[in-house]
Amino acid sequence: MINEFALKDAFAQHCGVELIEAGEGTAKAKLVLKDYHHNGMGITHGAALFTLADFTFGAAANSHGYDAVTINVHMSFLKSTKEGTLYGEATETNLRGRIGSYHVTITDEAGQIIAIFEGLAYRKF
Amino acid sequence: MINEFALKDAFAQHCGVELIEAGEGTAKAKLVLKDYHHNGMGITHGAALFTLADFTFGAAANSHGYDAVTINVHMSFLKSTKEGTLYGEATETNLRGRIGSYHVTITDEAGQIIAIFEGLAYRKF
Amino acid sequence: MINEFALKDAFAQHCGVELIEAGEGTAKAKLVLKDYHHNGMGITHGAALFTLADFTFGAAANSHGYDAVTINVHMSFLKSTKEGTLYGEATETNLRGRIGSYHVTITDEAGQIIAIFEGLAYRKF
Amino acid sequence: MINEFALKDAFAQHCGVELIEAGEGTAKAKLVLKDYHHNGMGITHGAALFTLADFTFGAAANSHGYDAVTINVHMSFLKSTKEGTLYGEATETNLRGRIGSYHVTITDEAGQIIAIFEGLAYRKF
Repeated sequence: MINEFALKDAFAQHCGVELIEAGEGTAKAKLVLKDYHHNGMGITHGAALFTLADFTFGAAANSHGYDAVTINVHMSFLKSTKEGTLYGEATETNLRGRIGSYHVTITDEAGQIIAIFEGLAYRKF
Repeated sequence: MINEFALKDAFAQHCGVELIEAGEGTAKAKLVLKDYHHNGMGITHGAALFTLADFTFGAAANSHGYDAVTINVHMSFLKSTKEGTLYGEATETNLRGRIGSYHVTITDEAGQIIAIFEGLAYRKF
Repeated sequence: MINEFALKDAFAQHCGVELIEAGEGTAKAKLVLKDYHHNGMGITHGAALFTLADFTFGAAANSHGYDAVTINVHMSFLKSTKEGTLYGEATETNLRGRIGSYHVTITDEAGQIIAIFEGLAYRKF
Repeated sequence: MINEFALKDAFAQHCGVELIEAGEGTAKAKLVLKDYHHNGMGITHGAALFTLADFTFGAAANSHGYDAVTINVHMSFLKSTKEGTLYGEATETNLRGRIGSYHVTITDEAGQIIAIFEGLAYRKF
């Protein structure tokens, strides 16, 4: 299921992030790295990695048919990267009332973990 | 002082983030909101807010003449927004050996707090 | 105002944490450091600092007359300590519907910052 | 391997936290819940859960023969609890130079996840 929320995401499109798939509480997305994703040191910008992670999280959090808004996020950067394709994979670690928590792992083509992300969403209903 | 690191930041430029000023352990930046900063709900994307915060943090962290890489970040989203200009302001909360911690506040034109961000950097020397 | 919630806190008492004052969205507490607060390296345990911060946060979050439960917390340890008295001071950074966010600063007797803490609470009503 | 660092941890002992085992970058610990672990609402205090998580993290982070100090932590509370035995299990998610990152899961006797924790340590050598 490709959700409508993700398809209308203008900023994700501007940054090259693409949804691969989304299920109930899960999502996968990818980012083909270009030069415009670099920071001042010539490696992939943390904010580009964040955009991939946040989009994947959002697609998972909005998979239940309610609008979910982000409360807070925590992200750790484990390995630098500069080219190739990155993948984001989100899983729902908890869903209790209005609050859902999600874990996202960013990996490169070799399967190495580049960054880990935790996001908390508030569901409006 | 406008630091070189910030001027070469391709992703910040791609996203419209501009440095206003940077001093020793501090920085200010801005983002003029456009339609491409929206998420699927038509409000400013969390990742666009993050890009502004992360850039401001990076400019402050790299102000001491050493390359600083991000270890982890924590960001809370307090108020939604969709247009106008946003400002990021970073201050150094701690600097001990190789580790620096920074706090960034994102405000709108009326001075209302939109988001708060904490970033931890590792300095290479 | 000394709130009832804080007075019945068994774990805070077990750990020596004391409420100094609590107002609307704010609180102050203290911890007189003893040997039992040490970790295996002979300095104050991060979890003892956390207990002080978390209690201060809880007193502030429960000051509005609704039960508030913790969603998540983020804490950075800036300076080690081993004796003397520590102070926690909580302020409400945001309150929107059911979600409140709080910032806590832990300082020593000299006013030096030992740790900073951010907590998010969910209010039941 | 039961490491010496964990055995000398006065605060963990004061709070009833016990190490079960520790290997290279991993650790398990437990906490038998007592009334003194309660908060003002009569459920297990977030700081008691934190103490279990932080201790488990510390045992894993100090397993490599270097002193590791905590930089920052992030913890999400997923389910409340009040009695029984809780278990903490730490795994090393990354180790790069002086920085190690660890994930800790807190579960109850039924294997349900009570809380998740991420900790970042700085190794002194």
